[in-house]
Amino acid sequence: MIVSENVLASMRRTNELFESEVVKNRNISALENIYTSDARILPPGAAMIEGRDNIKNFWRQTIAGLATQSATLDTVHAESLGDRVFEIGRADLHVAGGQTVTVKYVVLWKEENGQWKWHVDIWNPNQ
Amino acid sequence: MIVSENVLASMRRTNELFESEVVKNRNISALENIYTSDARILPPGAAMIEGRDNIKNFWRQTIAGLATQSATLDTVHAESLGDRVFEIGRADLHVAGGQTVTVKYVVLWKEENGQWKWHVDIWNPNQ
Repeated sequence: MIVSENVLASMRRTNELFESEVVKNRNISALENIYTSDARILPPGAAMIEGRDNIKNFWRQTIAGLATQSATLDTVHAESLGDRVFEIGRADLHVAGGQTVTVKYVVLWKEENGQWKWHVDIWNPNQ
Repeated sequence: MIVSENVLASMRRTNELFESEVVKNRNISALENIYTSDARILPPGAAMIEGRDNIKNFWRQTIAGLATQSATLDTVHAESLGDRVFEIGRADLHVAGGQTVTVKYVVLWKEENGQWKWHVDIWNPNQ
């Protein structure tokens, strides 16, 4: 099923929050508005992490050591499935020195308090 | 929504086909019964690959160089979303010499010709 323009716009706002607040400003508390409270992430090189508090700890540590200065998230494919949205996306990470690292991901989106958020998030690098 | 026992059993048969035919017997043609015709895979270290024929080529090359002798796929979480099933899983790859490598994955399942198959498949290693 096609995702409505309203939902796509809400998803876009969530992604922009990650780009501007989490990656650029290193503002970990913004993750409250990005992940659902019972979200799960499946990062490369680690076991699955469950719950937003644990996810915030993961990103706090990861962002601190990250050479990435900015990131761009793009939806490659999105479909409505029941009351969720299933998305395939691509992230370009802009590293100090002008290099770009490409990461692809799958996100299962869920509406929480009127806002579309990442409920399951898995990614891996293209290189 | 909970996944019915019938669907879970069909998913289990598909996974067993991957374990026995693809990993153990290096039988690439079995992938016809594992992936949908327009499936997508997102492997670590490569760009997204679309379509079962391209996916077969990927696995033909990957399996040939693989030290894995057998694999066990386990469903960690599954839910029905519309006419799809969304799954989080775990694969233990048993490598020559007795080592085990753990991989986690997300699979979006779709029914094709009465059989539940992998429609989107993304994974990454735990280590």
